[in-house]
Amino acid sequence: MTLRVMGVDPGLTRCGLAVVDVEPNRRATLVAVGVVGTPADHSLDRRLLMIAESVDVWLDTHSPAVLAVERVFSQLNVSTVMGTAQASGVVIAAAARRGIPVALHTPTEVKAAVTGNGQSDKAAVTKMVTKILRLATPPTPADAADALALAITHAWRTGTTSSARSQGGVGQTAAQRLWAEAEAKARQRR
Amino acid sequence: MTLRVMGVDPGLTRCGLAVVDVEPNRRATLVAVGVVGTPADHSLDRRLLMIAESVDVWLDTHSPAVLAVERVFSQLNVSTVMGTAQASGVVIAAAARRGIPVALHTPTEVKAAVTGNGQSDKAAVTKMVTKILRLATPPTPADAADALALAITHAWRTGTTSSARSQGGVGQTAAQRLWAEAEAKARQRR
Repeated sequence: MTLRVMGVDPGLTRCGLAVVDVEPNRRATLVAVGVVGTPADHSLDRRLLMIAESVDVWLDTHSPAVLAVERVFSQLNVSTVMGTAQASGVVIAAAARRGIPVALHTPTEVKAAVTGNGQSDKAAVTKMVTKILRLATPPTPADAADALALAITHAWRTGTTSSARSQGGVGQTAAQRLWAEAEAKARQRR
Repeated sequence: MTLRVMGVDPGLTRCGLAVVDVEPNRRATLVAVGVVGTPADHSLDRRLLMIAESVDVWLDTHSPAVLAVERVFSQLNVSTVMGTAQASGVVIAAAARRGIPVALHTPTEVKAAVTGNGQSDKAAVTKMVTKILRLATPPTPADAADALALAITHAWRTGTTSSARSQGGVGQTAAQRLWAEAEAKARQRR
């Protein structure tokens, strides 16, 4: 069973959006990728609305089974972290309104899943995403590659790291259960 | 002309909500006040959704002319600031979806406007809010009093600190223009 994951790399200036289909054998296929940019000279409410409306359209167009969002840390760049957190709140609420489960992954988890090294740089992530998705050219800008990497990471980690569990919820979502079952079956066939 | 302002003191655990009507002569009247609490053991998406849905109901029920939100700083308590910023993003986007202008005020601005001292403590703010709104008993908890103080602050400052201007927008909103005109007229009558 193919799992459709939407990945979002939240940001006020640039918000990376990506949708990938991932098969139980981990083969991942690009469905859509893009970046929502909001002008720095617009008001905060206008910028957050642009992000909210874009995410609404993506969620309704692609109907992902799960939304993977980068976990924001306050230790990062102080000047932009508040806007990033506000954007992530809007994105997460958009999925929650639709009953789409949300999973948070740290940048280290994403790098480790995609490149095998939690400390790798953006270029290495972009290179591996390009290879994993069998793309002719690397996705640009970096935020788009990060969103793709998030989606791939979530699909590959599902069953071992569920959103609900890591956030104190009651366990796996229906999609995660289905995935875990599919994965177990795929393992038996190998 | 009476200006209806909704104030929100954002937070993931407790989000203070308040609506006040403020007349050109600065007389402020309580319309509604409350707190949305979300359980810490619920998932982040569920908590943000609860806040989003509550704010939606309040905006639709009370139709404020403007939403005043506390400006979040990353320098504050690191363990809660991310959730606070995410909640504020959801709140701001809810207003933006309805075309309701959003104004951000710092805690210092709020304290200075309500008590005359930007360094005053929560008890002093609660005491002044109780007096300004002619309430029989102080609003509780503190988040509710802060939301009321935010709404009062915005109304009292409007015309000198507009949301649009302070955020690089094109100028006053229609509500702010009307208010400034009303204020100018009230001044002439005094």
